[in-house]
Amino acid sequence: MSMLITDIGELVTCDETIDGAVEEPLHAGLGMLRDAAIVIAGGGEDAAPVIEWIGPAAQAPAADWAISLEGRAVVPGFVDSHSHLVFAGDRSSEFAARMSGTPYDGGGIAFSVEATRAATDDELRTLIAHRVAEMRAQGTTTVEIKSGYGLNVQDEARSVRLAREVTSEVTFLGAHVVPPDRRDEGGRAAYLDLVCGEMIQACAPYARWVDVFCEPSSPFAFDGEESRRVLEAGRAAGLELRVHGNQLSEGPGVQLAVELGAASVDHCTFLTDADVEALAGSKTVATLLPGVEFSTRQPYPDARRLLDAGVAVAIASDCNPGTCYSSSMPLMIALAVREMGMTPAEALRAATSGGAQALRRTDIGTVRVGQRADLAAIEAASWLHIPYRVGVPLVRAMEV
Amino acid sequence: MSMLITDIGELVTCDETIDGAVEEPLHAGLGMLRDAAIVIAGGGEDAAPVIEWIGPAAQAPAADWAISLEGRAVVPGFVDSHSHLVFAGDRSSEFAARMSGTPYDGGGIAFSVEATRAATDDELRTLIAHRVAEMRAQGTTTVEIKSGYGLNVQDEARSVRLAREVTSEVTFLGAHVVPPDRRDEGGRAAYLDLVCGEMIQACAPYARWVDVFCEPSSPFAFDGEESRRVLEAGRAAGLELRVHGNQLSEGPGVQLAVELGAASVDHCTFLTDADVEALAGSKTVATLLPGVEFSTRQPYPDARRLLDAGVAVAIASDCNPGTCYSSSMPLMIALAVREMGMTPAEALRAATSGGAQALRRTDIGTVRVGQRADLAAIEAASWLHIPYRVGVPLVRAMEV
Repeated sequence: MSMLITDIGELVTCDETIDGAVEEPLHAGLGMLRDAAIVIAGGGEDAAPVIEWIGPAAQAPAADWAISLEGRAVVPGFVDSHSHLVFAGDRSSEFAARMSGTPYDGGGIAFSVEATRAATDDELRTLIAHRVAEMRAQGTTTVEIKSGYGLNVQDEARSVRLAREVTSEVTFLGAHVVPPDRRDEGGRAAYLDLVCGEMIQACAPYARWVDVFCEPSSPFAFDGEESRRVLEAGRAAGLELRVHGNQLSEGPGVQLAVELGAASVDHCTFLTDADVEALAGSKTVATLLPGVEFSTRQPYPDARRLLDAGVAVAIASDCNPGTCYSSSMPLMIALAVREMGMTPAEALRAATSGGAQALRRTDIGTVRVGQRADLAAIEAASWLHIPYRVGVPLVRAMEV
Repeated sequence: MSMLITDIGELVTCDETIDGAVEEPLHAGLGMLRDAAIVIAGGGEDAAPVIEWIGPAAQAPAADWAISLEGRAVVPGFVDSHSHLVFAGDRSSEFAARMSGTPYDGGGIAFSVEATRAATDDELRTLIAHRVAEMRAQGTTTVEIKSGYGLNVQDEARSVRLAREVTSEVTFLGAHVVPPDRRDEGGRAAYLDLVCGEMIQACAPYARWVDVFCEPSSPFAFDGEESRRVLEAGRAAGLELRVHGNQLSEGPGVQLAVELGAASVDHCTFLTDADVEALAGSKTVATLLPGVEFSTRQPYPDARRLLDAGVAVAIASDCNPGTCYSSSMPLMIALAVREMGMTPAEALRAATSGGAQALRRTDIGTVRVGQRADLAAIEAASWLHIPYRVGVPLVRAMEV
């Protein structure tokens, strides 16, 4: 079975090598086609549909079905390479108190851990499914999901198991923080032993990645040596590496990620020149999460500095209950443009092919023959409406 | 015919005098009820439905129909008191160029004027209807619409006539700027004569309001005396007053608005202490438009300063093709909280009862017996999710 998609406004492929791309500065690097059509094929029970043909609409081959997009623009589905969707409980009051200076102690992450542990599997499944559907409705076709609100063997294993039901990009983040109930004398060391031992063994069958919150400035996150231990234990268990680094202060996260060959180091808000240089010479992507700075009123990372140094940059939502409960990749693109010095084209690439690179995936993030047919359609003729019309729900993942 | 609405999460009435309101700092001033129900009635061909009863769900009276909101929060429908929806043409390239430093002259407002004049009535009708529907889909139940892209008698009159088909809050803004084709020697004075004479006469039958872009620092906007002339001519033609003032620099807009008793002065980005004092002692609302500062990368107005001085504050979208093509009142609330020093509760009030005050309406903006049943439902149990979940499309106007 094949399907021809016609009447596309702008078609952004994010494939710079594609024939016929528009050569205009605003669309630089996007491999953007006008008057193009796409044929997708496959999509039986065993396989996702793939892109079979891309080219001028006038030369489109026949297909079993055809749909008209009536002039809507198409972009690669967003690749949200950083989220924390496995949690229960409502922390909106904590957000509101933080933003308005009202005294309130909602319990922070401890609240989420308690609520997540208390939830049944089916309750968590419903919450995760709702969040993934919400993301699709905003154009996200691939999402990475981390554990990290279980923080014991049973609940971390459950978190990655449930995440695995909805995505292949599952990250074990037992080393999110030292759990609230393990912060007594000796608890920290014992927890780290648990993470690197029994917990990683229980979680590895469901996860692709291991991650750690490397932030020595936070008393409950992990320093460079602790982080190294977690990452090496994960690697020994067959997992690939990602790092939360340099979110709250300069620190060892970026250098560690580069040294160990992590796919991505995420946040990168506080960087030294040496950090930028290390990233530029590496295969590690810098993943920026501007929704966090929006939601915590912190200064934004400097994407321009990274791009100018030649660093590969992704943007992601970090959707989580504490520091950014937004799942909106269109908003992240708009924030990247408004606040981080990225051009619209750079921001769109960071949210699509950049995200794919941060997940070391070559089958998603661009519109290219042979790739998955993960497409998002926009209620406008130009993809530029994504940042131009900030806040307006214009982008949807296409159901093909 | 009457309808009972039950299973409401938080019900925000924005009526501080209502019985049983929750007394918690985060909800201060919102008249927020838990376990409440609403009965609405009427809604025949001649009249909008009105709110007939509000109270504890356990005491709800019988009604002809009942619907369950399954725990969703309800707020008054947003009152977007400042928009420019009557235009044709796509200026996304201009936005992208501005935000990325790419050289590009899209023609600015001249482009919109040309495209608007060239459009047929039906083309404009379709564009306006689409934008109003998009706003409703984001929770806006009342929208003010300005003319200002016609800038000749025929096209200004057409703009207010078409706007009048979708809202009673129509504003004549012939004095948006001196039109591009009237900027020759003597053209400015002649255009002002036209606005204050023939144009206002042609537009007044369709409009409630007259407005002027009072901004002496801009060569194509109007200074204090010109603005006064426009406003007085409008008043003589039976129109009520609004002012665009103090957007780009300190200037006479605010003082003029207060002196003439305008319902609102909009933007208020650059204010002297005397401006703030004048507003505090007046019946003129300060309407803030943070989407403009987002989309033009300008500094945000200081809402905190206004609120602390006792000024009545509204927030609106300013949805327009040049400086903010966002129609999202939820985003404006989030920006007000993140960037302008408002608490979530203050921002929500500014987007509902504040907007109503800026339009001198007493039948909308709060949930109160006898008012229009203009309600918005949220995909969450708490209204706090509006700023907490920035960018996520959670709010919808209820179809009742």
